[in-house]
Amino acid sequence: MLIVQKYGGTSVGDIERIRAVARKVKRVCDEGHQVVLVVSAMSGETDKLIGLAEELSNHIEGREMDLLLSSGERISAALMAMAISELGVKSMSFTGRQVGIVTNDAHTKARIEKVSANRLKKALAEGAVPVVTGFQGISVTGKDVTTFGRGGSDLTAVAIAASLKAALCEIYTDVDGVYTTDPNMVTEARKLDRVSYEEMLEFSSLGAKVLQSMAVEYAKKYNVPLVVRSSFSDAPGTLIVKEDEDMEKVVVSGVAYDKNQSKITIIGVPDRPGIASKLFGTVAAANIVVDMIVQNISHATGATDISFTVARTESKKAMKLADSLAKDLDAVGTDLREDISKVSIVGVGMKSHSGVAALMFETLAKHGVNIMMISTSEIKVSCVIEKKFTELAVRALHNAFGLEGKKKPAKKKTAKKKAKAKRG
Amino acid sequence: MLIVQKYGGTSVGDIERIRAVARKVKRVCDEGHQVVLVVSAMSGETDKLIGLAEELSNHIEGREMDLLLSSGERISAALMAMAISELGVKSMSFTGRQVGIVTNDAHTKARIEKVSANRLKKALAEGAVPVVTGFQGISVTGKDVTTFGRGGSDLTAVAIAASLKAALCEIYTDVDGVYTTDPNMVTEARKLDRVSYEEMLEFSSLGAKVLQSMAVEYAKKYNVPLVVRSSFSDAPGTLIVKEDEDMEKVVVSGVAYDKNQSKITIIGVPDRPGIASKLFGTVAAANIVVDMIVQNISHATGATDISFTVARTESKKAMKLADSLAKDLDAVGTDLREDISKVSIVGVGMKSHSGVAALMFETLAKHGVNIMMISTSEIKVSCVIEKKFTELAVRALHNAFGLEGKKKPAKKKTAKKKAKAKRG
Repeated sequence: MLIVQKYGGTSVGDIERIRAVARKVKRVCDEGHQVVLVVSAMSGETDKLIGLAEELSNHIEGREMDLLLSSGERISAALMAMAISELGVKSMSFTGRQVGIVTNDAHTKARIEKVSANRLKKALAEGAVPVVTGFQGISVTGKDVTTFGRGGSDLTAVAIAASLKAALCEIYTDVDGVYTTDPNMVTEARKLDRVSYEEMLEFSSLGAKVLQSMAVEYAKKYNVPLVVRSSFSDAPGTLIVKEDEDMEKVVVSGVAYDKNQSKITIIGVPDRPGIASKLFGTVAAANIVVDMIVQNISHATGATDISFTVARTESKKAMKLADSLAKDLDAVGTDLREDISKVSIVGVGMKSHSGVAALMFETLAKHGVNIMMISTSEIKVSCVIEKKFTELAVRALHNAFGLEGKKKPAKKKTAKKKAKAKRG
Repeated sequence: MLIVQKYGGTSVGDIERIRAVARKVKRVCDEGHQVVLVVSAMSGETDKLIGLAEELSNHIEGREMDLLLSSGERISAALMAMAISELGVKSMSFTGRQVGIVTNDAHTKARIEKVSANRLKKALAEGAVPVVTGFQGISVTGKDVTTFGRGGSDLTAVAIAASLKAALCEIYTDVDGVYTTDPNMVTEARKLDRVSYEEMLEFSSLGAKVLQSMAVEYAKKYNVPLVVRSSFSDAPGTLIVKEDEDMEKVVVSGVAYDKNQSKITIIGVPDRPGIASKLFGTVAAANIVVDMIVQNISHATGATDISFTVARTESKKAMKLADSLAKDLDAVGTDLREDISKVSIVGVGMKSHSGVAALMFETLAKHGVNIMMISTSEIKVSCVIEKKFTELAVRALHNAFGLEGKKKPAKKKTAKKKAKAKRG
């Protein structure tokens, strides 16, 4: 069986850990499997390089940044190949260019256009374990090094697995799988054995740090079976695959939250056609990603309030735009709230079950949590709430949807009872 | 004027120094020149990477080592391009591959086969300052990263200067030029304004660390005018060019020494044809570089002693071979001396002056320094002596050949007088 394994920065954080991965790889080879490795930069390395660049300049060319940042993975790939060879298993390192990962020219956030993997096939045929630098490719026109952004090594692994038609793509990280919610926040959080690509995409985009969204999208597109598991244990991890009937029986798979959001409101906008288009066109042109949008027309005044959320790092930039737009649009004013968070429930079963959103709202109300914004998709419901209620809301929803191992929603349980159970 | 400038590890050792280089480059550009930069890894970086690799293995594949080591220059090249851009001068980083430095497949000690430099010409035409990663190219068959060995960034600079037909190739380092001898050992050492390629080659191979031999050979072959100068001052440095009549008037240009030598003797070898060939054939096959060789036939016994010197790091390996060869050859035994050093005088003027070697021997004898081995070439004389006499010998020779600024040998001056002069 051909397996692509990706190891993150903490898994290759020092020489001892690199040796541990090499031993693990040898075991898998000894069992008769073929392995291709993808490695991230040693933990801390990428941040160190970014720090050096930021010392030099505030407006760095993406092309130079990519040459700089791609160095980290080259170091860990070379060291990993050495460590595996030292165990008597033939191993060779390869860069993104050498394995034919061709991208567009969007430096620091490049998209993969083509993966040829010819040298990987050759190395595998020669019995070698190829070790590929994660996070990078080569641009189609410039022939320059490009990178995929934070977490981009996941994408490298999936793209190579797709190109080689690997049986499995294993993402080794410092957690042992995908959980029903953050186990640091909810001790009863349960590891999921299987989730669908769609659910994983929602989890990723809703703030769960386990997998990069682009990697999940790529895996979904090419139907690459993904496993997220710990490099520090032999626990089986979570399998991410195509949605099936069993999955649909589970109404809600998990609860996600994101504390890094800000809510901006433009108050009292005259209700004219084209206002939203103008507003969000301007925001998009400034490269600010808007998450949720809510618009409410006041029948009394004929004016409307438009609220939207952005990542908190973008809130100052977005507020500037909002202020100038408010003037242009003859709006009453603007409002910024940074003390918010977004809590979401995710599950493919929602498609065929009713009352899911209602149970979410009811649960939050029961705990005195006011809902500021609501947004829904086919397989998730998100609510913006006051940030101080985040933990309370996540625990209550996790409990209300019976995620501690029970399949049925435990509607009757209250937060008080649950807190008691925890103390017991 | 098109100038190629190379900056060593200490010149780009931290962000502040990188900024200082960027300012210097801007000044040169403002004067109307075109500049191509070549940079080494930040000081300490390459040693750090070697240390990591050595922790993992004792027998590292050159191919993996090259991917590892080439990372250092990529980091400094990217940072340098950012620093120059920050000053408002357009700048782009390039790797060895991107500027078309094609080498043979001899990893970690690759030789340049071809330099196309097309992308450099394009960047220059667009008004940009290209910053090239030193020390690395791409292999002609494997399309893998190759490196040139220690000091290899000098070679990159010279090769690019040759390819671009640059007016000048400046090597910026932490000393301000080539000296008549080591200024740390002899305070009267004088900076040379000009030396010939041949003399510089001797200096480099005799232990002077200022320039890599391969770089000087390449410069000589393509007649690239080289300048060695300090990156921390505006002093003019030393120009290295083709030998001319003026140079030949100077009998001795400098005194070099090398304390990292060992002397191995095979004692009492029966005097038969083919012995030396067998001995040095075996040593060469083990990839040990032999420097000096002396063979003396004893007319009394009909047996011979063969002595040779190797770098001290190789002495254990070489002694093993010598011991087994002594057995094979029915020799009496072997002897290893590590307490030796090699002192040399160099000068193109020797070709047309007699008595140079004689003055050297006389000077050493006058100071009670016993000569253990002698080796001569057209433009140098080397003597192996006891290591403890190194400083004494170098100072005496520097004085005897009048290198403190006078052009004529000061034959009458004794070490005693010189010592007095120094105190005065």
